Amino acid sequence: MLNINERIDIVPGTRWKIIQDKNKFSYGIDAILLSSFAVPKGRVIDIGTGTGIIPLRISNNINVDEIYGVEIQDEVAAMANRSVHLNGLETKIKILNMDLKELKSEFTKDSVDTVITNPPYMKAGGALVNTDENFAISRHEIYCTLDDIMEISSYLLRPLGKFYMVHRPDRLVDIICDMRKYNIEPKEITFIQPKLSKKPNLLLIQGTKGGKVDLRINKPLIVYNEDNTYTEEIKEIYR
Amino acid sequence: MLNINERIDIVPGTRWKIIQDKNKFSYGIDAILLSSFAVPKGRVIDIGTGTGIIPLRISNNINVDEIYGVEIQDEVAAMANRSVHLNGLETKIKILNMDLKELKSEFTKDSVDTVITNPPYMKAGGALVNTDENFAISRHEIYCTLDDIMEISSYLLRPLGKFYMVHRPDRLVDIICDMRKYNIEPKEITFIQPKLSKKPNLLLIQGTKGGKVDLRINKPLIVYNEDNTYTEEIKEIYR
Repeated sequence: MLNINERIDIVPGTRWKIIQDKNKFSYGIDAILLSSFAVPKGRVIDIGTGTGIIPLRISNNINVDEIYGVEIQDEVAAMANRSVHLNGLETKIKILNMDLKELKSEFTKDSVDTVITNPPYMKAGGALVNTDENFAISRHEIYCTLDDIMEISSYLLRPLGKFYMVHRPDRLVDIICDMRKYNIEPKEITFIQPKLSKKPNLLLIQGTKGGKVDLRINKPLIVYNEDNTYTEEIKEIYR
Repeated sequence: MLNINERIDIVPGTRWKIIQDKNKFSYGIDAILLSSFAVPKGRVIDIGTGTGIIPLRISNNINVDEIYGVEIQDEVAAMANRSVHLNGLETKIKILNMDLKELKSEFTKDSVDTVITNPPYMKAGGALVNTDENFAISRHEIYCTLDDIMEISSYLLRPLGKFYMVHRPDRLVDIICDMRKYNIEPKEITFIQPKLSKKPNLLLIQGTKGGKVDLRINKPLIVYNEDNTYTEEIKEIYR
């Protein structure tokens, strides 16, 4: 079941196992924070699921009926699928190895309750692209842009369905404008600061399809104490 | 020079005097934080100047050539004007008692280096409106909306001119979308938290007319320590 360079870890906060490959792709704190921030229910789609960390993290949630993890990269999707089988979660989690642009042929409009996504953060053509192809696709908007994600999310979500995303603060203006463009009103943001003394380097955002205008900015989440140990909030999330 | 109920205070961080009237209008911490956040230069316009606190706060700045404080309310504009004369600052600060919609006849397009504004925070027709007319105009979008402010700011600012505003986090989506609509790209945001343990209740935002996409979110500014004393950052601003 394991390829060379792969190893099995335990998904934080669960008893589920997850296959990872340090040389290709492994999940980051971003996905863990996003899956704790999200309040998923019903039919859930995770766009760009990677190793399947988010479906595995939320699969114990009693409000969640079924989870689709969408991943364009064949090898990573296959790895996520092996993790699903390893845990016997085939009835709850389906890994779809496809381009998000194909989702319109897979799902009818307004048929999803929750969209979750940990998308590539960097604009294609912007900063240096990592030469390792798997890293590049996961980190840069090569196969999908923020606009693509918002468009398909708006198509999939039922009215008042919820959208959850982790992204970078330097993209906030694009994020907010794209959400409004596709009728997903931003309702809640939590900024993540590496330390109390540092500016945020991540943000968690929740939007509601057709929601009314009213944004709540939460107090920031701090990852490390000044002595580089994890804060209690972070320990609680990983517990 | 003073009307009944008026008193003279010292403008924090300066030797200038300011006339205030607790029953009508006095400045808040918002205006102080905004004037410390802003990096004004050249020809500056303060839209909705109220008591004139922002022009007085920045009048010592050697990069500032002239400041126009625009105020629609006759009585408040007259009070601001008396404060300007009290300090002998008539050559540096001009109080314009007019509607911001009239500014197009007063200034040519692209003729201003810096716009600063502490506008009404609440949408007209939203929450309860204070029955005292001066408070109502200052706090609610009765005479001007966010859209009006962004439109005139974009008209006034020269290319790459700077826009600085204090506002409420629950309006962030409107703020960002309106700024983009009028080609003032948001470049920097500082959220203000009353305490470390509380969510932000104010935000400071800087935009650049025709600026490139790249937003910096600063670490938040905290007003009070948990024991209700001012933080060092705030003491420094008021010093």
